[in-house]
This record gives sequence, C-alpha cells and structure tokens, in this order.
Amino acid sequence: MNRLHPADIADILRNLEPEKRKLFFDSLKPEVGAKVLAELDPLSEAELLEELGSSQLSKILNVMPSDDAADVIADLSQEKQDKVLQLMDEEESADVKELLKYPEESAGGIMTTDFLALDENISAGGAIDSLRKYVQKAPPTFFIYVVDNEKNLKGVLPTHNLIIVSPQKKLKEIMDEEVISVPLDMDQEKVAQIVAKYNLTVIPVVNNINKLAGIITSDDIIDVIKEEAEEDIYHMVGSDEQELGNSVFRIARGRLFWLIVTLFGGIFACTILRSFRLTLEKVVALVFFIPVIMNMAGNVGIQSSTVVVRSLATSNINFSKIWKVLFKEIKIAVLIGLICGLGVGTIAIFLGGQGLTLGVVVGISIFAAILVATLTGTVVPFIFKRFKIDPAFASGPIVTTVDDIIALSIYFMLATFLFRVMG
Amino acid sequence: MNRLHPADIADILRNLEPEKRKLFFDSLKPEVGAKVLAELDPLSEAELLEELGSSQLSKILNVMPSDDAADVIADLSQEKQDKVLQLMDEEESADVKELLKYPEESAGGIMTTDFLALDENISAGGAIDSLRKYVQKAPPTFFIYVVDNEKNLKGVLPTHNLIIVSPQKKLKEIMDEEVISVPLDMDQEKVAQIVAKYNLTVIPVVNNINKLAGIITSDDIIDVIKEEAEEDIYHMVGSDEQELGNSVFRIARGRLFWLIVTLFGGIFACTILRSFRLTLEKVVALVFFIPVIMNMAGNVGIQSSTVVVRSLATSNINFSKIWKVLFKEIKIAVLIGLICGLGVGTIAIFLGGQGLTLGVVVGISIFAAILVATLTGTVVPFIFKRFKIDPAFASGPIVTTVDDIIALSIYFMLATFLFRVMG
Repeated sequence: MNRLHPADIADILRNLEPEKRKLFFDSLKPEVGAKVLAELDPLSEAELLEELGSSQLSKILNVMPSDDAADVIADLSQEKQDKVLQLMDEEESADVKELLKYPEESAGGIMTTDFLALDENISAGGAIDSLRKYVQKAPPTFFIYVVDNEKNLKGVLPTHNLIIVSPQKKLKEIMDEEVISVPLDMDQEKVAQIVAKYNLTVIPVVNNINKLAGIITSDDIIDVIKEEAEEDIYHMVGSDEQELGNSVFRIARGRLFWLIVTLFGGIFACTILRSFRLTLEKVVALVFFIPVIMNMAGNVGIQSSTVVVRSLATSNINFSKIWKVLFKEIKIAVLIGLICGLGVGTIAIFLGGQGLTLGVVVGISIFAAILVATLTGTVVPFIFKRFKIDPAFASGPIVTTVDDIIALSIYFMLATFLFRVMG
Repeated sequence: MNRLHPADIADILRNLEPEKRKLFFDSLKPEVGAKVLAELDPLSEAELLEELGSSQLSKILNVMPSDDAADVIADLSQEKQDKVLQLMDEEESADVKELLKYPEESAGGIMTTDFLALDENISAGGAIDSLRKYVQKAPPTFFIYVVDNEKNLKGVLPTHNLIIVSPQKKLKEIMDEEVISVPLDMDQEKVAQIVAKYNLTVIPVVNNINKLAGIITSDDIIDVIKEEAEEDIYHMVGSDEQELGNSVFRIARGRLFWLIVTLFGGIFACTILRSFRLTLEKVVALVFFIPVIMNMAGNVGIQSSTVVVRSLATSNINFSKIWKVLFKEIKIAVLIGLICGLGVGTIAIFLGGQGLTLGVVVGISIFAAILVATLTGTVVPFIFKRFKIDPAFASGPIVTTVDDIIALSIYFMLATFLFRVMG
C-alpha cells in the first residue's frame, strides 16, 4: 500500500467510511501519511484530523513540506494548534509559525520555505556539494536561489546548469540576474497571473526589502488557478460555497443572500405590473409574452456581462477599453435584437389574437430589451470593479433582475401607448 | 528592447496600431521574435502573421520550440503552411509536421518534441556529457527520460540527480521507474487533471506502444486549465466565443443558438399562459407575481446545476453519487423554499388585493418552483453527461427555461383550482 502514489491513496481514503479511514491511515508510514494528508480534499482532511492525536499528528507534520503543514495546522482548533506546534521539531515548528502569519490567499500563505539559497560568492563546485547535502532531506529542487550576504535575492540558477560550467566559476558569474519575484502580500490570483504570463515553473517570494522568504511551485499555482476559476463561477450564479461538504444550513444561507436580493427585484416588478393593471385588464394577451421577454432580457444580459466579467478577470481589458467593448456589444445586440424582435413579433401576431398591434409591441419590446440588457450587462461589471466588488457577482442574479424590470417597464409602457393609438 | 521579457514585448505589440506592429516586430532578433510570437494573444498573432513573409516567418519558426511552432503554423492558410514548412530547416519542419497530425486539444497537440531521452544503459557520467551538448541548443530541461533500445519509456530522472550519484552508475539503476505518462490522444482537460492530481512539473506523452513521443510542461498545463475554465463559463451562459477579437457576426451567431432554444421555451410558456386565459381574466393580480416566480425558479435552478456541473468537471463526484447529491440538494431546497414561500406568500396577501387565496397560491407555487428547479438543476447535468454533451450547457439557458415552464404551470394550475375552491 505504501508504494501507491499518495494522490491515489487519498482517493481510496476519501471513499472509506470515517471509522475505517483512521485504521487505514494508521497503517501508513509517517512519510507516506504526510503526502496523503496534503492530497486529501478539505472535508475528508477535517474528518481525519479530528480522529488523529496530537502526538501522531506532530510526527506526520515534521516530515511535511512547510506550506502543506501550515495549511493542515490552520484547519485545527486553536487549542490543538498550540499542542501540535509544541510537539513538533523546533525548526519545523518555527517555519510553520512563520507561514501562519500570512493571509491564506497571499503569496506568503501559499509559499513553502523549503528552498536552497546559496551565497553569490560560492563556486559552482561548492554549490554541487551543498545541493548533494540538501537533496538528502528535502524534496527535489530545480533551482538554486543566489543571495548576497544579507540574504537579498540576486539571481537564480537552474540546478542542471551546475553540471555544464567550470567548477571554479562563482555563482554570481553564472546566475540569471533577471529573476522575477513577487512580494509576500501579493494576492494569490495576481501571483498566478504572473507565473502564467512568464511561463515560470517556480517563483520566489521576497519581503519588502527583497530578502528571499520562500518559493511557490507550479503545482500550487495550478491549484490557485483552479480555485479562483471555481470561485468566479460560483460568484456568477450568486452563491459562495465551493465545497460539497458544507452543511445544509451554511449552503442555504450562502445561496439565500442573492436569492433575496433578486426577490426584492421581483417585488419591484410586481408593483410595476400593478401600475399597468388597466392595460392588463384591457389586453390580457399581453401576459402571454411576459416569459419570453424576461428570458430574452435575462439571457442576453448574462451573455454580455460574462464576456466583460471574464475579460476583467483575465486582464484582457481595462477601463480605458470600456467604450470599445460597449460599441462592439451594441452592434451584436442590434443584430440579435433585429432577428429575435422580428421573429417573436411575427409569432405574437398569430398567437396573441390582437392583430398587428400586439405583434408590434412585442417585437419592439424584445428589440429594446435586448439592447438595454446588453448595455447593463456590459456596464455593471465595470461599475462593480470600480467599487472593488468582484464583478462576477454582477453577472448573474443582479443583471437579470435589473434587466427584467427594465424590459417589463418598456413592454407595458409601449403597450399602453400603442393600444391607445392603434387600438 | 531585446532585453525585455518576451511576454512584456508581446504586451507592447498588442497595444500598437497594426501598421506599427510589423515595423516593431522586424526590429527584434529572430530568437526574441520567436518567443514574442508564442506569447501573443490569438487576435494580434493572426494580424501579425498576415503581414510577415514566408521566408521571415520560417526563420523565426526554426528557433521556436516545436509545439509553439506547430500552433503558429496551424493558424496559417494551407498555402502559406506549405510554403513555410518547405523553407524551414528539415529537422524542425519534420517535427512540426508530426505535431500537426494530432488534434489541437489532445496531449499530442499540446506536447513539445524538445526533450532529452537517453538509453537506460548509459552511465550517469555519459548522461552529463549528453546534457551538456543538449542545453547548448535547446530550452532548459529539468528531467531526463530514460528509454530502452526501442525508445520505450522506462523511467525518469531529475537532471540534478546526476550530480549526486557516482558517475559509473547506469541510468536504469538511478532512474525513477514509477513514471506517470499519458497517451497521445488523451484530451487536454484529462491531462491537466492528471498533472494537477499528481503535482507534476512535466508529463511525458507516449504512443500506443509506450514509445516516448513528447513532453508537456507545466506552463502549457496552466494554459489548458485557464482555457478549459473559460470554456466552461461560456458554455454555462450559452455562448461559445472566448475571444474578444471575433467578428460581430460570428459572435452573434454563437450567442443566437441558445437564445433561440430558450425562445422556443418562451413560446411554449406563452401557449401555457394562453390556456389559462379564463383564470387570468378572473384574477388579473396573478400576473403581478409571474416575474418573482420565474426569477426564483431560474436562479435556484442555476445554483443547483452549477454545483453539479462543477463537481462533474472537477471530478469530485460521479454517477454513483447522484442520489447523495440529490438528497442533499432537496434538503437545501426545502429550507430555501419554506423561507421564500412564506415570505413572498405573505407579501402577496398585501400587494395582490385578493385576500388570503392569492397569498396561498403564490407561497405554495414558490415552494414548489424551488423544489422542482432544484431537481432539474441537479438531474439535467447528469443526463447531459451521460449523453456526452458538456454538462455546462445544461446549467444556463436550458435549466432556466425548463424551470420557468414548470413553475408557471404549477402556479396557474394551483390558482385555477384554489380560486374555484376558496373563491
């Protein structure tokens, strides 16, 4: 069992009954257990951690990379945290305490302190000796970070370059000085964007005086990118949970917030319809087309806002481009509006039983609703961004609710007017 | 200018006028130009490629990694492809032709053929000599792939391990035999899942007889993950474009497809409302609550389907868990349905002017709509997955349209019944 890949063992654990999980986990060597724990999904991890004693846990955490150990400890109760940190080896425990200081979603929160930094005046031969010692107790490393005597980051060197240079050369002569690093407090999403932009495998993290504090590896960046994409998607539909494991009450509370916001929108739409009571009583057939007008407005609004929200999230556009995006979206909206307006308008003539007038009202309303939905869908995300709210929240419930209200108002105002004029 | 990072030069190029772009690009050395071209967004790349002559382009492609070169050539017209491939160095051109055979979104389509493979019987010392030669003309490599005399993949070796072993040892004695590889035709999304699961930096690609064909590096995996997340989001709102650069007509066509599907849903809702004409004429106030019922059904449906769609996409659940997920979603729906049903029902008593009856009708309908929307939102993505349609398509327009129709039917059937009974 100890020969399986830790990620596969984690898969097996995840599907076991909680009571069997502990037994199974106990049968693993500490080094394997450490790797499995780092691979577990948050829910199974939490359940397992409750079962493990502090002394067993501290032994496992001693052999874990410091960033993974900090993540695990952050999930414990304060009491158990203190106990486990006390039982751990002094050096490991100090590393973890340091990492726990940084916010979970910052560069400091996702970095590991397991890296090899060497002085710039060391020779390539000396570096090979250091590397030899380092790999005996640490995970594989692809880069050596070169620092000056105050531990400031000066350059980087792929380990295999040591092989191809003369052993007498000093590291400062063979290192790459153009090293891209990020500060401790940078948001993890921004770090991921930089790693993606420059096609990096590892990125060093420095403090505010350029002292090397840790490194972030590509596997952590991959996790960040997946996590952020999920977060954006859930925000777009107005919910916040990402874990199937959360309790029913917590999930319901998260979803209710945006539902209640849209519910107020619905009440507002209700009062608008009430104010058109006379028109409604005169032409009941107007009701038949409420769903199609609401659907068109909502769907078109979401399509437009999604383009803007994703472009803002992936940094494809910025505020200076708002007019260019808006102009293009309007052209698309006119095209879609003409096709849908003509189509549904024609259908309304036949299905409505109110002759040409209802067809004209429905057709123009669909066209106008699509145009307005495009405008709100394009502009609202920019406004949210300006006020530092995640634009993703603008894309779902909010935009559809606003679009519904505007579309229904246009529909009934136009109907009241045209049925008075055309009869 | 040649000292800037290629990704930064690409940023500058992207913001230049098309005519200045060519002049600027010509001023770059071919090696820099090659890196910049690989970093450009698809739209700017396409515009630039049109301007470049075949001979200039072939020089640039010669010094590009084979996977990037294949991506660029795939974007050219057939005629220009042939011309450029003929002008390129024979070896490079053969590599690219090989890569062009594989579908763009398969492991073969994203792999590079620039890797170092050595025979298992070579000594560590011999491997160091080979590595020394290799790095003079190829991008940095962190792993050496170990093959037998028929080029079958036998193991992998981090390059820095060569430093720490005795030079006489054979590669087969020091390599890691547990190498995880993927087949040429595996979908890129699946490849990304494997790399993420096993925290890999590079993954080798093998053909159907385990012969090493190429490698995929983490920067390409990061691109795949970003690309797939964007694709999922756009599918969820019923559109297919991912590029702001596409023409207005192409974008409109992409969005229209799902709009027209929902439009038919709207027409269907229209005929349902028509069939309840008598109830509507008797109690016009029923109309006032159509928007809030449609909104609740739509939003709840999207929230549920998003959980399922994302879980299916990230492999958190599979078909065997459908009942567990459904049961949990139903519990959430009952909770949300009770709160919203009671709330809106009470409001309807005051705003509707039809006494208790309308309140009861609206309240029960909201509760029922939320329950039904949760059921469809949970089940439809599983059905789509079963029929090999991207479940993301199920999450947006389709679910809301189905939910609207069911919710309106419940509402008017209940109203017709209760107003007859309670008056």
